Amino acid sequence: MPLAPTLKQRRQRLASHFNAPALLWSGCATPRNFPANTHPFRPSSHFLYFAGLPLENAVIRLADGELALFMDEATPAQALWHGPSPSREELADKMGAEQAFPLKELERFVGDAVATLKVQDSATAAHQEQLLGRSLPVAKRAEHQDLQLLQAIVQLRSRHDHYALEEMRRAAAVSVSAHKAGMAATQPGLTEAQVRAAMEQVIMAQGMTCAYNSIVTVHGEVLHNNHYHHGLGENDLILADVGAETETGWAADITRTWPVSGQFSSTQREIYDIVLAAHDACIAAAKPGVEYRHLHLLASRVLAAGLVDLGILVGQPDDLVAQDAHALFFPHGVGHLLGLDVHDMEDLGDLAGYAPGRSRSDRFGLGFLRLDRPLQAGMVVTIEPGFYQVPGILQDKGNCDLYKNLVNWDRLAQFADVRGIRIEDDVLITDSGCDVLTAELPTEADDIETMVPEPE
Amino acid sequence: MPLAPTLKQRRQRLASHFNAPALLWSGCATPRNFPANTHPFRPSSHFLYFAGLPLENAVIRLADGELALFMDEATPAQALWHGPSPSREELADKMGAEQAFPLKELERFVGDAVATLKVQDSATAAHQEQLLGRSLPVAKRAEHQDLQLLQAIVQLRSRHDHYALEEMRRAAAVSVSAHKAGMAATQPGLTEAQVRAAMEQVIMAQGMTCAYNSIVTVHGEVLHNNHYHHGLGENDLILADVGAETETGWAADITRTWPVSGQFSSTQREIYDIVLAAHDACIAAAKPGVEYRHLHLLASRVLAAGLVDLGILVGQPDDLVAQDAHALFFPHGVGHLLGLDVHDMEDLGDLAGYAPGRSRSDRFGLGFLRLDRPLQAGMVVTIEPGFYQVPGILQDKGNCDLYKNLVNWDRLAQFADVRGIRIEDDVLITDSGCDVLTAELPTEADDIETMVPEPE
Ligand SMILES: [Mn+2]
Ligand SMILES: [Mn+2]
Repeated sequence: MPLAPTLKQRRQRLASHFNAPALLWSGCATPRNFPANTHPFRPSSHFLYFAGLPLENAVIRLADGELALFMDEATPAQALWHGPSPSREELADKMGAEQAFPLKELERFVGDAVATLKVQDSATAAHQEQLLGRSLPVAKRAEHQDLQLLQAIVQLRSRHDHYALEEMRRAAAVSVSAHKAGMAATQPGLTEAQVRAAMEQVIMAQGMTCAYNSIVTVHGEVLHNNHYHHGLGENDLILADVGAETETGWAADITRTWPVSGQFSSTQREIYDIVLAAHDACIAAAKPGVEYRHLHLLASRVLAAGLVDLGILVGQPDDLVAQDAHALFFPHGVGHLLGLDVHDMEDLGDLAGYAPGRSRSDRFGLGFLRLDRPLQAGMVVTIEPGFYQVPGILQDKGNCDLYKNLVNWDRLAQFADVRGIRIEDDVLITDSGCDVLTAELPTEADDIETMVPEPE
Repeated sequence: MPLAPTLKQRRQRLASHFNAPALLWSGCATPRNFPANTHPFRPSSHFLYFAGLPLENAVIRLADGELALFMDEATPAQALWHGPSPSREELADKMGAEQAFPLKELERFVGDAVATLKVQDSATAAHQEQLLGRSLPVAKRAEHQDLQLLQAIVQLRSRHDHYALEEMRRAAAVSVSAHKAGMAATQPGLTEAQVRAAMEQVIMAQGMTCAYNSIVTVHGEVLHNNHYHHGLGENDLILADVGAETETGWAADITRTWPVSGQFSSTQREIYDIVLAAHDACIAAAKPGVEYRHLHLLASRVLAAGLVDLGILVGQPDDLVAQDAHALFFPHGVGHLLGLDVHDMEDLGDLAGYAPGRSRSDRFGLGFLRLDRPLQAGMVVTIEPGFYQVPGILQDKGNCDLYKNLVNWDRLAQFADVRGIRIEDDVLITDSGCDVLTAELPTEADDIETMVPEPE
């Protein structure tokens, strides 16, 4: 499907939800250690959704279903150093923009009713505020017409069109290859960094980038782990959460957990199979109308039941979940929206993730849930249950007291070689159920074992 | 050499050049597409020089040769998600800091005489300004005590100590391996992205990062080329400018140019050998007391002489250089300072690169020179002559008129398969001459050819 008709449909849908003019900025590259040495440029996702192309320092105007592009063309001096680039007219044509102007023309289109969202980079944000003559709060605190724009964007971006899904399938396919490469590169004695490099190489070789900072670790119990210096021990599990992003910003988000030796220990496999059962149960239940929170609780119950069977938890699964005992081992939500952002629209706070009138729970077992909406066809969500032995949770005095009789601590001690397991797939909600975009990557323990080479 | 004594020596040297207290901030990670999805954190280079460790959201105070560290320890909630981290006392000990405080104690140490430099990220810069009660210009426009601090820092950072050189040798060694991997991965029909990925994989596998956005291109004539989508044609040259940065921020910067087929064409080899002669001449001439500008002009003369021998330029080499005719093909400077930044201290404008009283030339052949100082033992500079056929330069009407009789355009047309060649090494100035930190990577055309596999 070509880009221009997709963008036309998106802005016409926007016009049906929002009737004031909107300006969206792409942003600018930000300095790393000095101004000329920047981080790779990543445009605003809201801009990308309606502009389709990763243009730096560009602005689009959306009004009445029409698109105007504002950008300056490269000066001869810039062309000298950066090479030829398409003209504004060529880009506008590719996007199907009705109009195209140099940036200075923007000032003709400002006024009190113009809506916008503040971008992430402060230099561009300052330009936005200067041009519009008002100060802008961060996007999640937008007010008045900006809030209405944001609510309309949430409506649109929550359910993906064909073009977006094709992009996400491409991101998923490359991410699947990256995980296969990571498994194939695994050997005791290597480092996490070597496995990470084998995975990210695949993404980079395809001209894509990582959608987020990869997690590749033998310490899966550290949930936000961006260190890669540990050696791979023969009895370790590797937890790898690595996803690609296409050239136009569409993301994948995959986690797999595999044994360094190519063989799960019996304790590792027992827990692995419980996490997988939770994962599979959620995918079997995902369809339009189902509350995402229900999937989270379903995963929690399956985990609790499995841990009861293993003798780690003591009690009835439903009671255990009601008391948040599962959250001792599964302290995060079962997933989130996926799209142009790995946590899609998280810049808008919970405005995308939570249905109107809903807000985060205070409960230990629910507070980290990033998504609390009924599923709709066209949504893409992740399903990512896990089991972790987080010292800060399991050694917490309050938790030890509270859950004293619900956990068999002696039995748990036998599972010391399971620090963290997560299995994460990307799931498109269809009219009748769901379609796993990342299904090419096996999840069964037997299949995983065949993909990791024997120690040399 | 351990870190703490090195840092002590650095701050004592600072105290001998600057006698007011200074506060240096490390900065914070900046958002990519949403606040929780950040670019990888890179601390300020000035902070790293005196603090030695890549600490986020930390501040150091330097006064009278003593170091105080200000940072907050991870909260229990942070430790839950990010894992255990060393305590403030442990870090202070590693750094040899005389004192260590939580961040809130900083306010006890502010006053009119306190010097600082504005960091790159705007959130931290706002904190700096708020705490010090004054607005800060970008570092290169620093005034009063800030300017004096900056000048003292330039003195120190211009000449590297043993610790820095060990780090830079590590960065160089990994970068050499990356280039070898790039050559070994080359095959007609692949893409630039695949070669880039093979190179960056090596850097990432060693736990290092790229010091700058890599250039890996068959369009070497585009000097700032950050696209990687072109296919590798059988008759193309690949120009790869890729360098690693160690965990504590020390950089390497290497460029090599190799034939996709493993065999230079006769025209490619003729130009390659001229660029190499310029490179070798500069390295042979580099020693303390020599003006870096002299090396630039030396490279220019060797290039001009070679192009005269080939019949591309017409005239006497010295005359051609005096008329900037060499700059038609070599439109950039012969190199720059190297250290914690790939263009070391370029955040300070030309304050580091240009000796006091000197400023950029208006001349076409000199205006892009980033360094105009006499060489001193302990400096590390790059030597990176090149030859490029930049359409924007060679097709420029003014240049065509001006250089009509100095260029044999018909002869030049025979070298159409040479779009861009650069050979770049990192050179430490020693007491008696220089030491090429990147010498492990061959430069001779014959050697390069043996490193690129035959087309399959
Ligand atoms: Mn996820
Ligand atoms: Mn360089």
